[in-house]
Amino acid sequence: MSTSRLVKCLNSNQHIVRSFGSRSTPSSPTPDFIGEYKEPIVKTKTIPGPESKALSEKLNKVQDPRAAHFFADYANSRGNYIADVDGNVLLDLYCQIASIPIGYNNPELIKAAKSDKWISAIINRPSLGVLPPKDWPELIQNSFMQVAPKGLHQVFTAMCGSCANECAYKAVFMHYQHIQRNGAPFTEEDLQSCMKNQVPGSPELSILSFKKGFHGRTFGTLSTTRSKAIHKLDIPAFNWPAATFPDLIYPLEQNEKKNRDIENKCLQEVEHLIKTWPIKVAGLIVEPIQAEGGDNHATPYFFQGLRDITKKYGVAMIVDEVQTGMGATGKFWAHEHWNLSSPPDIVTFSKKMQAAGFYHNIEFRPSESYRNFNTWMGDPLRALELEVVIEQIKKNHLLDNVTITGDYLKNGLFDISNKYPGVLSKIRGDGTFLAIDLPTAAERDAIIAAIRLKGVEMGVCGDKSIRFRPMLICKPNHIDQFLNRFDQTLNELKKN
Amino acid sequence: MSTSRLVKCLNSNQHIVRSFGSRSTPSSPTPDFIGEYKEPIVKTKTIPGPESKALSEKLNKVQDPRAAHFFADYANSRGNYIADVDGNVLLDLYCQIASIPIGYNNPELIKAAKSDKWISAIINRPSLGVLPPKDWPELIQNSFMQVAPKGLHQVFTAMCGSCANECAYKAVFMHYQHIQRNGAPFTEEDLQSCMKNQVPGSPELSILSFKKGFHGRTFGTLSTTRSKAIHKLDIPAFNWPAATFPDLIYPLEQNEKKNRDIENKCLQEVEHLIKTWPIKVAGLIVEPIQAEGGDNHATPYFFQGLRDITKKYGVAMIVDEVQTGMGATGKFWAHEHWNLSSPPDIVTFSKKMQAAGFYHNIEFRPSESYRNFNTWMGDPLRALELEVVIEQIKKNHLLDNVTITGDYLKNGLFDISNKYPGVLSKIRGDGTFLAIDLPTAAERDAIIAAIRLKGVEMGVCGDKSIRFRPMLICKPNHIDQFLNRFDQTLNELKKN
Repeated sequence: MSTSRLVKCLNSNQHIVRSFGSRSTPSSPTPDFIGEYKEPIVKTKTIPGPESKALSEKLNKVQDPRAAHFFADYANSRGNYIADVDGNVLLDLYCQIASIPIGYNNPELIKAAKSDKWISAIINRPSLGVLPPKDWPELIQNSFMQVAPKGLHQVFTAMCGSCANECAYKAVFMHYQHIQRNGAPFTEEDLQSCMKNQVPGSPELSILSFKKGFHGRTFGTLSTTRSKAIHKLDIPAFNWPAATFPDLIYPLEQNEKKNRDIENKCLQEVEHLIKTWPIKVAGLIVEPIQAEGGDNHATPYFFQGLRDITKKYGVAMIVDEVQTGMGATGKFWAHEHWNLSSPPDIVTFSKKMQAAGFYHNIEFRPSESYRNFNTWMGDPLRALELEVVIEQIKKNHLLDNVTITGDYLKNGLFDISNKYPGVLSKIRGDGTFLAIDLPTAAERDAIIAAIRLKGVEMGVCGDKSIRFRPMLICKPNHIDQFLNRFDQTLNELKKN
Repeated sequence: MSTSRLVKCLNSNQHIVRSFGSRSTPSSPTPDFIGEYKEPIVKTKTIPGPESKALSEKLNKVQDPRAAHFFADYANSRGNYIADVDGNVLLDLYCQIASIPIGYNNPELIKAAKSDKWISAIINRPSLGVLPPKDWPELIQNSFMQVAPKGLHQVFTAMCGSCANECAYKAVFMHYQHIQRNGAPFTEEDLQSCMKNQVPGSPELSILSFKKGFHGRTFGTLSTTRSKAIHKLDIPAFNWPAATFPDLIYPLEQNEKKNRDIENKCLQEVEHLIKTWPIKVAGLIVEPIQAEGGDNHATPYFFQGLRDITKKYGVAMIVDEVQTGMGATGKFWAHEHWNLSSPPDIVTFSKKMQAAGFYHNIEFRPSESYRNFNTWMGDPLRALELEVVIEQIKKNHLLDNVTITGDYLKNGLFDISNKYPGVLSKIRGDGTFLAIDLPTAAERDAIIAAIRLKGVEMGVCGDKSIRFRPMLICKPNHIDQFLNRFDQTLNELKKN
């Protein structure tokens, strides 16, 4: 089937039904989003439509527009639906790369944004480390600490996910060297050599990450990112080690023994790298689910093994919850599913939290101030936003909603998989943090393009996966809209 | 004189007069800030006062509070004055590390923050690269491009100064390798080796910076930062070269020949490093005025020399205007003072711009999309803020105000220097971006502590310098308030 034929045949947005298959749509404790669209609206024959294309040309004169799907009309977006400049309204299952928690134009956020507290935070942007606002300690309690991972009691605030991880690595290196020195002060040689980027002041130390992992785009984090070449080409990198992440065999229930062997082999590789890598490993970073790299999962057994190995060798364990955190797996943190023997040393976050940073305990606070520091040290506005988001998650039972919606979506994907044998594989994930594989990247990309023209905005990951990253307010009725359109899309694909 | 005695004797906030010395206070075309305080108010015997200290203890339970000067009451801050939780009101000449452009609670910013446009930008935070808002191309024109450095026509947007520089380095490395490849596509070896952080895909390339320079705290930028050991200790760094920045002899007018020799020697060192450093130099980064490192200046001759050398060797010239940009030297960009033969390749910005990123031309746009990329790619809210800031700068003649205020401050510092021989040295700078040296760090720090208790918030840099970083709305009458208090402080110091 040619993609152009597929696109043509999908240009008419017909035959949308209101429920999927024979399953009844489950109810959710979460109230409906007031003023939300009832379903997607597709008005143009292509997306991007003519207005988006004109804006892209205009943007091109001052900024790179090539990655844009279309130009959004945020004022007209509502809840789970994103509007574009051509009058289209799409059900958004990608959500700004997994970064919208409680819906476009959420009325509670609008109300809060008009408050004096928010306005002051917006226009009087502080250097938080130097001149914190008077309500900062209380705001930390009412936002970050409301959802602090069990066992972690301090929070370092930052501006984005990459910076959260960069600052976490710095905390890890400072802590590691502090232990090496037995707490002794810096020597004159330390002070002088670091100014030349030389040992011992600038030590040769590494962070171990996993192949296919993604941890950011800055030089430290990019040295641990191993998702795709396009992220890394031409950029100098540290000689840091990467271990193999388990590539589990699906369905999991039928492959428990084989998968245990796979995970054991990966754990052995981690231990081997820690023992033999020429540059001492000070920290290990891992995503609970490798997102950019293809929604790769491992079992709690694997992560328990990582915690044990890192403890054994004095390697700090950093869990990167930038994409998995804040409820998408049905718990606030994906690592809550693991039942570790002791908490991770550091948990990093951003995206749906709106505010970025990392949780830690006091031993990862540097020996002196100004060591892990920068001008803004985060943004109080985003902590205020987080405060509202957490309130809404609790009040509207959004974690329960995620579990119900996720189960319904997963079952629907299995139904569709049975209907079209050999098309979908590796249906996987927790909560609504789900993914499926298509036979090839080309087929996957054709489906994404085709279903966009039926009114669903989706994202990809890995080589041939579709990833689901709906908002926490995505309910089973929204999933019906997706499943029907997905069914249609595959049906039309089959015919071609 | 002991510091504790000094502090004691300064605890009474008496004898504040309304003008300084015999000079008449010049007029400025900038209107007064409506509702601003008339002068500082000091109510507590120490700053931080008791309320700030209590909040510091509270914050300590969840975050490192050690760098905080005091806890601010932003709702009660106005224009050039910052209020604290203890009822003190200080004239702010440090301004959140040079990051407040047009005053606390600026009424135009308050008005704008209440607009639907701002509220939508705040609560519907886009992944700008994927789903830009419909007004994004126009907003870029009305904000960033209004003040684009001459000869640079594209803008890359980011979240903070460190990220602006990191992304600029990436653009430089991609461009350098593109030239090396003569535009040929990546080889299979490139694609595979970069996934292992190995050459040729992850090339060995460097950015040349200057000793005492500061460019950020993330791993790439920190490898170019050479300001202070405390910024660098224990953090692995790339083996990148650092050249000597001119250490000019003051007063400049009497040392032209010697300073020319000093600058020539530095230029020779730069050229030597480019030719001989074992890791190829792809880019050079320089601050127009080294800020953190001690407000170190060079003449236009030096920067013209850097432009010529970088052109000669195909090294990209990055001018880091994170602290110098946006008007503080009396021009929008400090490098406008240089009259270069061709524009810099890249100019980076953040701080007073509120929005961060870098200007460049099309050749520094990567060959493919998603190469210099991240989730947020900046924040439309901060571009909206920049739009208002630029409007206010133009409407209220703030660049003229900066020149008038800066001249008045500089002359006042010379008067005080004459009154207290041997205390102040190297009075230097452009616009209000001024600095002075004290004989020792201890004396400098004692003055900063003492003048805070007279109601002036100030910042330091380098080993023994005070840096002035007032807002663009700081007028000669505010400078009178500072000069009188500074005079008193030095007078009291002398008596002890």
